[in-house]
Amino acid sequence: MPTIRPLVFALSVLLSASAGAADFDARALRDAEQLRAGNERGTDAYAIVESLTTEVGPRMAGTPAYDRAVAWAQAKFKALGYDRVYLEPVSFPVWERRHESAEVLAPYPQRLLITALGGSVGTGGKVLEAEVVEFANLEALKAAPADSLKGKIAYISNRMERFKDGHGYGPAVSARGGGASEASKKGAVGYLLRSIGTDSARMPHTGTMRYAEGVTKIPAAALSNPDADLLSNMLRRGKPVTLRLDIDAGMNGTKTSYNVIGEIRGRSKPDEVVVIGGHLDSWDLGTGAIDDGAGVAITMSAGAMIGRLDRAPRRTIRVIAFANEEQGLFGGRAYADAHLAQVDAHQVGAESDFGAGRVYAFRAGTAPEAQPVIAKIGEMLAPLGIVYEPGRGGPGPDVGPLAGKGMPWAQLAQDGTDYFDYHHTANDTLDKIDTKAMDQQAAAYAVMAYLSAETDVDFGKSPPLTGEE
Amino acid sequence: MPTIRPLVFALSVLLSASAGAADFDARALRDAEQLRAGNERGTDAYAIVESLTTEVGPRMAGTPAYDRAVAWAQAKFKALGYDRVYLEPVSFPVWERRHESAEVLAPYPQRLLITALGGSVGTGGKVLEAEVVEFANLEALKAAPADSLKGKIAYISNRMERFKDGHGYGPAVSARGGGASEASKKGAVGYLLRSIGTDSARMPHTGTMRYAEGVTKIPAAALSNPDADLLSNMLRRGKPVTLRLDIDAGMNGTKTSYNVIGEIRGRSKPDEVVVIGGHLDSWDLGTGAIDDGAGVAITMSAGAMIGRLDRAPRRTIRVIAFANEEQGLFGGRAYADAHLAQVDAHQVGAESDFGAGRVYAFRAGTAPEAQPVIAKIGEMLAPLGIVYEPGRGGPGPDVGPLAGKGMPWAQLAQDGTDYFDYHHTANDTLDKIDTKAMDQQAAAYAVMAYLSAETDVDFGKSPPLTGEE
Repeated sequence: MPTIRPLVFALSVLLSASAGAADFDARALRDAEQLRAGNERGTDAYAIVESLTTEVGPRMAGTPAYDRAVAWAQAKFKALGYDRVYLEPVSFPVWERRHESAEVLAPYPQRLLITALGGSVGTGGKVLEAEVVEFANLEALKAAPADSLKGKIAYISNRMERFKDGHGYGPAVSARGGGASEASKKGAVGYLLRSIGTDSARMPHTGTMRYAEGVTKIPAAALSNPDADLLSNMLRRGKPVTLRLDIDAGMNGTKTSYNVIGEIRGRSKPDEVVVIGGHLDSWDLGTGAIDDGAGVAITMSAGAMIGRLDRAPRRTIRVIAFANEEQGLFGGRAYADAHLAQVDAHQVGAESDFGAGRVYAFRAGTAPEAQPVIAKIGEMLAPLGIVYEPGRGGPGPDVGPLAGKGMPWAQLAQDGTDYFDYHHTANDTLDKIDTKAMDQQAAAYAVMAYLSAETDVDFGKSPPLTGEE
Repeated sequence: MPTIRPLVFALSVLLSASAGAADFDARALRDAEQLRAGNERGTDAYAIVESLTTEVGPRMAGTPAYDRAVAWAQAKFKALGYDRVYLEPVSFPVWERRHESAEVLAPYPQRLLITALGGSVGTGGKVLEAEVVEFANLEALKAAPADSLKGKIAYISNRMERFKDGHGYGPAVSARGGGASEASKKGAVGYLLRSIGTDSARMPHTGTMRYAEGVTKIPAAALSNPDADLLSNMLRRGKPVTLRLDIDAGMNGTKTSYNVIGEIRGRSKPDEVVVIGGHLDSWDLGTGAIDDGAGVAITMSAGAMIGRLDRAPRRTIRVIAFANEEQGLFGGRAYADAHLAQVDAHQVGAESDFGAGRVYAFRAGTAPEAQPVIAKIGEMLAPLGIVYEPGRGGPGPDVGPLAGKGMPWAQLAQDGTDYFDYHHTANDTLDKIDTKAMDQQAAAYAVMAYLSAETDVDFGKSPPLTGEE
C-alpha cells in the first residue's frame, strides 16, 4: 500500500491545481456560507437604501444634494465599521434643469408631460412654437432630406422593448443620445422622443444626450409613454400639430465632487483589492432608489458583512460609491485615471447598477488561469439560484474604464424585467424595491467579493472587452 | 285530451305572468342577442374614448377644455346617428388650480410631489413654512386636543385598501373631504393627506374637499403614495420635519355649462325614457380616460348600437354626458331638478363611472312588479359573465339625485380592482383601457338599456336608497 501513496498524492495535487479552489480552507468556505445565509437571514441593504433615499433623496451630480450624499456615504461607511473611508475627487461640467413644460397648441390643445434630457439647452428664455414631424426611429430621422425639418420639431416615437437583461435599452437609447444632433442637422428647432422606458406611467424618463461637434444646439426632451401615444394619435389624424415648448436648462460651469470609498483591509495582501460598488449620484426626478441607491446599498452591505467576519480575507475589499455616473461615467473614469498605475493590484471589479432585482447569473472576465477559482465561486453562488455562465457578460459602467485597461471583472447579472419601468423617472422610489431580492443580491456580492479576496490565485488581466454585456 | 287544454293554458298564463319576460317577442330577443354580440364583434366604445382623450384631453369643469368637450359630445352623438342631440344648462362655482409645489426644508431637504385638492385655497400668494404632525387617520386627527395644531401642517397617512368593488374608497375618502376642516379647527395652517389611491406610482391623486361652515380655510393637498411613505419615514426618525408649501388655487366665480344629451327615439312610448350615461368632465391632471371618458364612450356606444337596430325599442333611450360630476354632482343634480316633474316617465337610470373594466354583476332597484323583467334581463346578460344579484347595489353618482326621487335604477357593477391606481391622477390615460373589457361593458349596457326600453312592464318607483353601492 505504501507504494501507491505517492501516486495518490500526485493526483490530488493535480486535482487541486485543476480545481484551483483548493486554496480555500475550510474556514473560508464556512465564512462564505455564512455570508450567503444573508439571503435568508436578511442584510443591511434595504435599511441603507431607505436611509439614502429618505435622508438625502434625489442627488443629481453638481447639486448640493450630491454633497449631502457624499457626507451621508462617509458616515454610513463609518457606521458600518469599514476600516478606512476616504474621498477621491471627480470633476465634471454641471448641467441644470430649471423649468420644463410643453403643450399642444393646435389642433387639439392640451398639456404634454415632458422632461428635458440631461445636457440639453433650453428654449432660450422664450417659448418655442413649431410644428411636429414624427419619425419611426433614429434611422428614419437620419434618412430625412437635408433641410426638410427647417423650423420644425422632430419627434421619434419608437418604443423600447422589455427584456429580463434590459437589452432593449441599447437599440432604443441611441435616439436619446444622438437624436437632437441629427434633427438639428436637418434644420429642426427642437427635438422630442418617446421616453426610453418600458412602462405606461405618465412619467417621462430623463437621461443624457450630447450634441455633435458643430451642430446648432436645440432643446431636447422626452415625452412620457402615454404622452407619446397621445401625440402619435394626434398626428395620425393628418392635420398639422403645433407644440409650444418652454424649457429652461443648460450647462453651468464645472464642479469637483467625490467618489466615496470604504475599505475592509485585507489580512495578508492588503495592497491587492477587490472593487465592488454602485453610483452615488442619481437623476433629479425620483429619489434614486433603484438607480442606483440599491447598488450602493447592496455593495456597502456586502462589504460590511465581510468586515464583520472574525477573519478578514487576504485581499482588501474596496467599496466605491461613484460620483456622476449618469452624465458620463465621470466617477468611473476618474477612478481609472487615478489608479491606472495600480491596475495589476485590482484583482476584480464589479458594479451593481441595474436595480434591486434578484441575481440570476454570474460571469467574469479574468485570465484563463483564474477560471477554476471563478468556477468555484460560481459553485458557491449556485444555492442562491445563480447560474455560472463562462465566456459571457461584461463589466458594469463605472468599473468599465479600468476593466478596459486590464482589470478583471465580475458580473452578477440581475433580473431587470421591471427596471426600465422606473429608470430615470420620478417613480424611482423606495417602494419599488423588494427587500428579499435585495438581500439575495447583497449575499451574492458578499460571497463573490469575499472569495475573490480570499483566494491566492491571481486574476491576471481581463480579456479584451467585446462590448457585449 | 281536450279536457286538459284549459288547464295547460291557465298554467302557461300563470308562468308567463310570473316570468314577466313573455312580453319580449322573438324579434326583441334576437335584437338583444345581436347587441350582446358586440362583446365578441367589437363596439365603438374604444374609438369614442380615444377620440375624446386625444381631441379634447383633460376637461375640468369650468375650463375652456370642458366647452370643447361639449362641442365634441354634440358632434359625436350626431355622427353616431342619434335622433336628437341637445344641451341642458348646469351652473356651478369654478375652482382653479394654478400652481402647486412642496418641499421638505429640514432635516432632510428634498422635493415632495403634491396636488391641491379640488376646492382648496392656496397659500395666499406667499409660501407656507411649518412643521408637520402625522395622524394615522381622520379619527386620530379629530381626537387631537384643541389648539394642539397651532401653526402646524396636519398630515393623515392612512392608506386606501384595494377591492374589486372599490369599497376601500369610502373609509379613506372622508379624510379628503373633511380633513382640512378638522385640522383647521385645531389651529393647523395647512393640511396634507396620503393620496386616496391604491397605487405606488409617484403621482398624487386629486379630488374634492369642502370647508365646514365658519372654519378658517387652509390649503389642502394630497401627497403621492411614495411621497407619503417618504414623509412618514422622515417623521419616524423623531426629529421635527418642516415643509414649505407653495399653492396657488381657489374659487373664481360661477359658470354655466351643459349636460350633453343624445336620444334614440322610442317607437311607441317615446315619452318614457331609459337613461344611461357617464360624466363628461374630468380632473385636470390626466386625460380622463377611465374617469369618465370610458363611461361616456360605453354608454354613447351602447345607445348607438340600439339606434342601428332595424326596429327601435318602445321607449326612448336617453344617453347623458353629465357636466361637473367631479366637484359635486352638479350635472346630476341639475338634471334631477329639471326633470323632477317627469320622474315617473324615467323607467330606469344607470351610470357607468367606475372605469372600463368588465361588468361582473347586474343589480336593480325597481318596483317589485318589475322584478320578473329584471330577472329576464339578468338572464340575457348572463352569457357575458354577469351575475344577477337581486336586492343589492345602488345607482351611479349622477343618476343618484333622481333615483332619490323615485327613478328606478340599474347597476352594471364593474371590476374596479385597478381603478384607484389611476383615478384622479395624471396617469388616467388611454393606455389604461382594455378594449375587450370595454366592449363587454358596452354590450352589457346595450342589452340592459334595450330590454328596459322594449318591455311593456312599468318599473314603478325605486325602493328607498340605503346608501350601499
